[in-house]
Amino acid sequence: MALTDRDALSLVYTPGVADVCNAIAEDESVARDYTWRSRLVAVVSDGTAVLGLGNLGPVASLPVMEGKAALFREFAGLNAVPIILDTTNVDEIVETIVHIAPSFGGINLEDISAPRCFEVEDRLRDLLDIPVFHDDQHGTAIVTLAAMRNAARVTGRELSQLRVVVSGAGAAGVACTKILQAAGIGDIAVADSRGVLHRSRSDLNSIKRELAESTNSAGLSGSIEDALVGADVFLGVSAGQVSEEGVKAMAPGSIIFALANPNPEVAPEVALRYAAIYATGRSDYPNQINNVLAFPGIFAGAFDAGARSITEAMKLAAAEAIADVVIHELTPDRIVPSPFDPRVAPAVAAAVANQARQDHVALV
Amino acid sequence: MALTDRDALSLVYTPGVADVCNAIAEDESVARDYTWRSRLVAVVSDGTAVLGLGNLGPVASLPVMEGKAALFREFAGLNAVPIILDTTNVDEIVETIVHIAPSFGGINLEDISAPRCFEVEDRLRDLLDIPVFHDDQHGTAIVTLAAMRNAARVTGRELSQLRVVVSGAGAAGVACTKILQAAGIGDIAVADSRGVLHRSRSDLNSIKRELAESTNSAGLSGSIEDALVGADVFLGVSAGQVSEEGVKAMAPGSIIFALANPNPEVAPEVALRYAAIYATGRSDYPNQINNVLAFPGIFAGAFDAGARSITEAMKLAAAEAIADVVIHELTPDRIVPSPFDPRVAPAVAAAVANQARQDHVALV
Repeated sequence: MALTDRDALSLVYTPGVADVCNAIAEDESVARDYTWRSRLVAVVSDGTAVLGLGNLGPVASLPVMEGKAALFREFAGLNAVPIILDTTNVDEIVETIVHIAPSFGGINLEDISAPRCFEVEDRLRDLLDIPVFHDDQHGTAIVTLAAMRNAARVTGRELSQLRVVVSGAGAAGVACTKILQAAGIGDIAVADSRGVLHRSRSDLNSIKRELAESTNSAGLSGSIEDALVGADVFLGVSAGQVSEEGVKAMAPGSIIFALANPNPEVAPEVALRYAAIYATGRSDYPNQINNVLAFPGIFAGAFDAGARSITEAMKLAAAEAIADVVIHELTPDRIVPSPFDPRVAPAVAAAVANQARQDHVALV
Repeated sequence: MALTDRDALSLVYTPGVADVCNAIAEDESVARDYTWRSRLVAVVSDGTAVLGLGNLGPVASLPVMEGKAALFREFAGLNAVPIILDTTNVDEIVETIVHIAPSFGGINLEDISAPRCFEVEDRLRDLLDIPVFHDDQHGTAIVTLAAMRNAARVTGRELSQLRVVVSGAGAAGVACTKILQAAGIGDIAVADSRGVLHRSRSDLNSIKRELAESTNSAGLSGSIEDALVGADVFLGVSAGQVSEEGVKAMAPGSIIFALANPNPEVAPEVALRYAAIYATGRSDYPNQINNVLAFPGIFAGAFDAGARSITEAMKLAAAEAIADVVIHELTPDRIVPSPFDPRVAPAVAAAVANQARQDHVALV
């Protein structure tokens, strides 16, 4: 509505708006229909882990949040507002987001460094009754699982039988490992820059210790190259390069996801010499593992269902929906849909909303 | 730009956006040109004083903030985002706004109850280097001063010679009194619901005590009707009704601004029996004192100049600019421009930006 006359003005603002205020004061649930917040995402960052660039501070992170907001709009028709924070203190971040949360339908956390990102998300999930989603963890994990499902299909393997080596124990490494476990993969070894995580290492923070205890059932130690011997899958979510010997030692027909940007952990010419499937985070190679396949549809589906949270099952459902979009078109160069495939966001949204209802976290 | 292909995506998001992030990390001042924040307003409320409806809570205040955001867009082309808070604690409100402030170019406080609104604004002005503006105070005050200037002109009086009685010592009453004093009006008496503020009253909070000390040079006491005897101007910014006897006792050719919504302190049929000028907050009478004449141009002007704050002189300049728009069209029924007069916001913005530069608070 154009605000070009007195009637429009008195409807949009005082006195007309008073009727809307009173209706919400009487029954807060009508705010879902009478305000924009129920489909509004806050894209929140403290600027401590901006892309692969590190701790640039909040202002230098703003262009990423603006880009993200544009993607929410383009791919799911959702409004999103960048909120950058002048604090890196976990308590202050949590309190600030809780205090502004009534303004929003969901919170997308972005580019917050590990291990603080885990605590921020966990506490917000406990405190808020709207979806909270750290995209660097779960967006990457969901698209990775989708790609892994189809990589297994293309190479004639069972997902649950894959032997996986993950390089990187930050936000993405932790979340990828957890979702692959939840999807039924039992044999996963995770390495940080000092080598494979195992229970005897004394240099681990609490997050990595937990990971060491829940992974590496084979009891591996040593370097990532040691772990790669005979492995089916390499999943790189750090910048650490892997030697050609390491790649060569993997099982025949191996699957390599080298997601570091802009320089994949395994260069394409090396990967293609040995692997059956090669995926990266880059747009100039096939099989781009791009979070944009997940987050727009996930928030749209959560909003469609009025979901109070995003459950683990909703994340698994999103991964399956992404994988299924191309299930009849699978080739080694097409294990995930293109980021621009218009089928993806609606399929993800429908799967996520449906799962929210099954999980009893949906309001509608 | 439509995000429909790989090139657009890699420009808006990773990897293209990294160049923008690095440029800002190197020199934060370029964020002014490279992000949207330098022209973005946060419209912030805790929902404790929603319109004239009282403490409805944050969610029920959201439609007002949404309406305000629409007005910023319509009248000054500015983006604005409603931020509603789940706390009414002054410390928490201040901390929360400080923590999210890097996201915005300016903070418009709205519908926060007195006297907390004064402390919130004062502390934010000290802590932040972007404009902070409590519209219920200063928007009303600026448009009131603009109307008062022209009411004096129409009735052949000197602004500085007016004897003014203000009814209401809340956010608007305090701010109106201060701006009228700053504009040179010396004889002002302020009344709250218990009568005229004077130094001997023992029931005043610190804000009202300060007001009692800086006003009422005539040493009045008693009811508002007592104070109105011989007064040139009645300015109502509370809901308290004034009797016909009170209006009748004012000086001949009196000026009545009865701004309570929807029921003015003096009904039109009573006012027009005695007064030369009658203004209200309503759109269905002439002379509407509407904040929309001020806030869009004030923020636009502050942003144009890269102003670090909004000074008292910038507020006075805004009032003069609003008054001057209709200076050659003055009649008793046209002491302020229509809210839809397209000359207003640009004139206010130019005056405010110019004054910001004179006051040395401008960056550009």
